[in-house]
Amino acid sequence: MEYYSKQISNLIAELSSLPGIGAKSAQRLAFHILNMPEEEVGRLSSVMVEARHNVHYCKHCFSLTDDEVCPICANPARDHKTIMVVEDTRDLAAYEKTGKYTGVYHVLHGAISPMQGIGPADIKLKELIQRLQDEVDEVIIATNSSLEGETTAMYISKLIKPSGIKVSRIASGVPVGGDLEYIDEVTLLRALEGRTEL
Amino acid sequence: MEYYSKQISNLIAELSSLPGIGAKSAQRLAFHILNMPEEEVGRLSSVMVEARHNVHYCKHCFSLTDDEVCPICANPARDHKTIMVVEDTRDLAAYEKTGKYTGVYHVLHGAISPMQGIGPADIKLKELIQRLQDEVDEVIIATNSSLEGETTAMYISKLIKPSGIKVSRIASGVPVGGDLEYIDEVTLLRALEGRTEL
Repeated sequence: MEYYSKQISNLIAELSSLPGIGAKSAQRLAFHILNMPEEEVGRLSSVMVEARHNVHYCKHCFSLTDDEVCPICANPARDHKTIMVVEDTRDLAAYEKTGKYTGVYHVLHGAISPMQGIGPADIKLKELIQRLQDEVDEVIIATNSSLEGETTAMYISKLIKPSGIKVSRIASGVPVGGDLEYIDEVTLLRALEGRTEL
Repeated sequence: MEYYSKQISNLIAELSSLPGIGAKSAQRLAFHILNMPEEEVGRLSSVMVEARHNVHYCKHCFSLTDDEVCPICANPARDHKTIMVVEDTRDLAAYEKTGKYTGVYHVLHGAISPMQGIGPADIKLKELIQRLQDEVDEVIIATNSSLEGETTAMYISKLIKPSGIKVSRIASGVPVGGDLEYIDEVTLLRALEGRTEL
C-alpha cells in the first residue's frame, strides 16, 4: 500500500485487524474517519479507550459492565432465583432482546473444549457453583448448540443435579420459519427427539 | 439496550454510526475491543486520532496524505505529465492496485451534481486547471461511470480542450468476466458504441 502515506496505511492496517473488517471495509472506514470532524474522531477514540479501561466483570453474573454490578443483577424486579447460563455477554444480549426472560444470568466466558484445551477451570464455573449457595430455584443452561456447548451443558448439569436444584436446557430443533428441506440432519433428529405432545 | 451498562452502550452506538457497520457488527466489534489488551486499544485509538489530525490534501494532487506531498507526487519515477482525474482517494487506490498506471493523479473530492447542488466550484477543479500551467501531455478522466461522473467528465473535457492538451476518458463497457445476460442495457449500448476494430 505504498500509494498511501504512512499514517493512512497504519490506520487501514489497524482497522483491518478488527473482526469482520476486510481490506475493503478497512479502507472505506479509514477514509470515513479521515473525513470526520476532528472532535468526532476524538470522541470515538475516547469512548473506546474509556470503555476498555472501565469495563470489567459484574461481580455476580460475570457479564461485562462498567458498574460494580451489571444493570440486570442490580434490577430488583428481576427473578434472582432463576439463573440462565450463557457462554458470553452477546448471548445474554440475544435473550434480553426477546424481552421475555425475567431471570438473571451467569456468563461462563467460554465453553469446555478438550480439543482447544479449555477445561472446566478455564471458564466461570466455580463462580456459578458459588452462586448456588444463595437461594436458587432453577439453572437454565443456554450454552450454544455446538459440541462445546453441549459438553458444557452436560458437565454443568451433572455438577448441579446432586444439589437438588432444577437444571434445564433450552430446546434445540427447527428454527421458527425454517424450511425442513434446508435443515441439517442432526437438527432434524434433535427436533424429533424433543417433540412435544399437542 | 438497557441490559448493557452505559459505556458499553455508548461504544456500540459510536461504532454503529460508522459506514457499513450495522447493529450486529457494532456489537461484535465492541466486545472485541473490550476483550483486546488495553494497550492495543490505546494504539488503535491513537492511530485514529493522529491520522485524522495529520492527514491533509497533497498540495499537488489533493489526495489524502500526512506528508506535504503524497508518495505518488513525490516519486520521480512517475510520469508527471500524465494526470488521471478521479473523484476520490479510494478511486486512486483502485487504479494503483493495477500496478500498471505510471502517471500521477488529481483528486476532485466529488463530482458535479446539480441535483445535490454540487457545482464546479465545490470540487478541486480550479486546482486541476492551475496544474495544467505546468507541462502536461494528457489528462485522463476517470470519474465514475454514473450520471454525476459523466457530467463532470464532459465539463472538464470542454474546459481543457481549448488549451490543446489531450483529454481522454476511461472506457466504459462490459466488465471482464461479465455475463452479457446480466448486464444492464445502458452498459450494453455503451460497450457497442465503444467497440474497437480487431
